[in-house]
Amino acid sequence: MAYLDHAATTPMLPVALDAYVAAAREVGNPSSLHAAGRGARRLVEESRERIAAALGARPSEVIFTGGGTESDNLAVKGIFWARRAADPARTLVVASAVEHHAVLDAVDWLGAQEGAEVVTLPVDGDGWVDPAVVADLIAERGDQIAVISVQWANNEVGTIQPIAELARLAAAAGIPFHTDAVQAAGQIPVDFAASGAAALTITAHKLGGPVGAGALLLGRDIACTPLLHGGGQERDVRSGTLDTPGVVAFAAAVESAIKTRDEYAQRVAALRDDLAARVRALVPDAVYNGSAADRLPGNAHFSFPGCEGDALLLLLDAQGVYCSTGSACSAGVAQPSHVLLAMGADDARARSSLRFTLGHDSTVADVDALLAALPGAVERARRAGAWKTPR
Amino acid sequence: MAYLDHAATTPMLPVALDAYVAAAREVGNPSSLHAAGRGARRLVEESRERIAAALGARPSEVIFTGGGTESDNLAVKGIFWARRAADPARTLVVASAVEHHAVLDAVDWLGAQEGAEVVTLPVDGDGWVDPAVVADLIAERGDQIAVISVQWANNEVGTIQPIAELARLAAAAGIPFHTDAVQAAGQIPVDFAASGAAALTITAHKLGGPVGAGALLLGRDIACTPLLHGGGQERDVRSGTLDTPGVVAFAAAVESAIKTRDEYAQRVAALRDDLAARVRALVPDAVYNGSAADRLPGNAHFSFPGCEGDALLLLLDAQGVYCSTGSACSAGVAQPSHVLLAMGADDARARSSLRFTLGHDSTVADVDALLAALPGAVERARRAGAWKTPR
Repeated sequence: MAYLDHAATTPMLPVALDAYVAAAREVGNPSSLHAAGRGARRLVEESRERIAAALGARPSEVIFTGGGTESDNLAVKGIFWARRAADPARTLVVASAVEHHAVLDAVDWLGAQEGAEVVTLPVDGDGWVDPAVVADLIAERGDQIAVISVQWANNEVGTIQPIAELARLAAAAGIPFHTDAVQAAGQIPVDFAASGAAALTITAHKLGGPVGAGALLLGRDIACTPLLHGGGQERDVRSGTLDTPGVVAFAAAVESAIKTRDEYAQRVAALRDDLAARVRALVPDAVYNGSAADRLPGNAHFSFPGCEGDALLLLLDAQGVYCSTGSACSAGVAQPSHVLLAMGADDARARSSLRFTLGHDSTVADVDALLAALPGAVERARRAGAWKTPR
Repeated sequence: MAYLDHAATTPMLPVALDAYVAAAREVGNPSSLHAAGRGARRLVEESRERIAAALGARPSEVIFTGGGTESDNLAVKGIFWARRAADPARTLVVASAVEHHAVLDAVDWLGAQEGAEVVTLPVDGDGWVDPAVVADLIAERGDQIAVISVQWANNEVGTIQPIAELARLAAAAGIPFHTDAVQAAGQIPVDFAASGAAALTITAHKLGGPVGAGALLLGRDIACTPLLHGGGQERDVRSGTLDTPGVVAFAAAVESAIKTRDEYAQRVAALRDDLAARVRALVPDAVYNGSAADRLPGNAHFSFPGCEGDALLLLLDAQGVYCSTGSACSAGVAQPSHVLLAMGADDARARSSLRFTLGHDSTVADVDALLAALPGAVERARRAGAWKTPR
């Protein structure tokens, strides 16, 4: 098989799985006061320090969660609630049009149920947010903004946003800026302190750690109402028994990913460039979506005119080539990608797209397998598409 | 060491850890459409069926979450939001005084921030909720009640509540009834359908599964607003990438715990009764807290007059005996137990208490170790307590 869907989830690194197993063989709740509990606590705190060091954060800024979706929801809702409680005039929630659904749907819910006013930041044809738009919005309505959320890099087309500039604009106006760095961490340099963000989402399973472990990096002075109340773990921002094995494995994966990142990015970007060039050679009218310059190294994203992405995906799947029409989270839902629509694609182009994402165990054989299967699959998908065209 | 803190967390069963490792060696996001994704989806759905069968639920009623705290928060907040949205008069949230903080603090937050009116159900000296009180409340204000939450069994003193009767009263009035069965599942028979509850919380790590995996059993017709918005997993009630290895390990643990439950309960209850009798023989003025009859098999809970529970815990810890002053989640916080206070204990008795909880790998040697260390520890703690008594 050729697994070209690393952005959906990437294989767990052996070093992370080994760390999980070693920790899972010990008993102890990190909140318990006895030696078994203190042993677990030590593992958690060492892991917190390792993750913080790898991502330019202070250990006390690492809030462990159950994953990226939880971190995004916690940041967006929690900061909104806390900011509005401090000043009822702050009702604006600002997010880009190309956010992951974990941010978009959280924002929409705040609008529908919790009295927020939602402002959506447009993107250009590459999926890029223009800082000038944010600057104008802040100049006009800055004192009404509760929180701004813009992802570090897009999960579908891989476009990297101007995070430092956006964070600087927000910070200058005293507005907390959150960034979903789920796709960026481990792929490109992500430094929390240097970014200037108030809050940053990461998750373990996108960089070789276990599913179900994630974190919100949260500045010490950023008020955030909990989503999960209870035992008061994690600075009282996120309650729930700390998952010692998950956290230890998360730290092992983050450390490994950061240590090998530059070499990884070079290797994977070369493989991706090869993939993209060969796709364009074989399917000359394929449209390469997203930014050529500011792009995650492992991401290639195409529209194949005249094809349904779903049909193409299944034809490739039948040949043992695994890819995605967009985010795995909304797979199965027959909707055109909100990301491509926001980038100005029409419905047909949005529906005809496929995402190929490479990762730590990707090889040239994976690319070869894709290229061997693609032309036939495109041809068959086009015939099916032509047949379905209304007459 | 003698680990007598299984209610805080219990060792992961080898069958669960093996299942975790096998699943973690495969790649695939259960929301992906390709064969790798479908393979992961199959594992998740088989696990859902196994957990449902073991707990008297339908597979579609199993909502996977990140653990007990998340399930409790989802049930209490989500059902409150949905019920109030359907009828603005439903503003009452009812919970017992002895709930875990994951319920209590969620309820308090709804009261403080979301316009709920909180009604606390009192308990008797054994920690037991009287169904007559609930019946009266429903007769008086039933049409204003959004949700009722009463735990199946208490995490500190092990008292088992009259869940079927409470659920029946609520159901007769059309009120969703939630029960936190985190401590009960695997210890005593828990059957979702037979209980009549609308929603039921379980977590894996209390019965030999991994931390970070849990579920809310939720009736198909019970509306529940999500806490975590996003990709729309889990009936759109709980978004977030499904944790295939965690879910598979959870299912293995649940199945194992249910299969061995009767034999386990007999064995552990006998061990606990031996422990309790020997504690009373060695420390005659020790007070056995909780119900003698309706009690979890692994739970023993004492107050030791004249001792500080924290001091006693650390003196036992120094002898390699691990126990708790209450819930692990609020350990370290120097507050008397809200459970004991609700049961009518005074501050001194509440502060002088220790919880011993047995589990699947407990032996008579663990009890022996406790009994060898306890008299000396009590004596030293009493001397320290007397010294601290204000003169």
